[in-house]
Amino acid sequence: MSDPGSGLRVRSKIWLELDGKPVFGRGREELLRLIQGTGSINAAAKEMGLPYRKAWTYLDAMEKRLGFPLVNRLRGGPGGGESTLTPQAEALLVKFDLLQQGFNDLVNRKFAELDF
Amino acid sequence: MSDPGSGLRVRSKIWLELDGKPVFGRGREELLRLIQGTGSINAAAKEMGLPYRKAWTYLDAMEKRLGFPLVNRLRGGPGGGESTLTPQAEALLVKFDLLQQGFNDLVNRKFAELDF
Repeated sequence: MSDPGSGLRVRSKIWLELDGKPVFGRGREELLRLIQGTGSINAAAKEMGLPYRKAWTYLDAMEKRLGFPLVNRLRGGPGGGESTLTPQAEALLVKFDLLQQGFNDLVNRKFAELDF
Repeated sequence: MSDPGSGLRVRSKIWLELDGKPVFGRGREELLRLIQGTGSINAAAKEMGLPYRKAWTYLDAMEKRLGFPLVNRLRGGPGGGESTLTPQAEALLVKFDLLQQGFNDLVNRKFAELDF
């Protein structure tokens, strides 16, 4: 239908829903990864251009709906403490990553096979 | 992380991009399928709650970008003629459907394997 040089590509995305409503996808994945990398909800929110309060709201809502804690919100003395991901959040990221990888590979292979 | 009864599900979506911009996805697929089913761009647009003019604009833009015709826009006498999909559009729908099927199956299987 078009040769490989024509620039036609397949894109894909996955997300998790709980009781029919989105609960985890790329945006929230990025938020958790940035907290993991920076040790700070504030820094993660800033990096995403997200108001700090909104980042908290997302985290609270996710934890409530998933039923387990995602971030150990440690507030130390002046300057605050480091926020770390819980083991459940780490596991969620690993699994979501594995899910996405297999997915992207398959869809690209299948797209090539179908000769769009 | 949560038992199968908890309502956690994976959702997925795929779409086609040309030179980095979306050119075909579920919405446009639905439009073509409705034209296929009704023989009428007008009826298809109505069914989707889309202004008629907008449906035409989508079709024109898609055809221009993909480089092949999608709909034979036949205007008969009073009342107008029937609009049919071109062979290229039929092929596009078949391939997109096959692409989506394998995709949904895989992601659901993988999701189950990963024991979210």
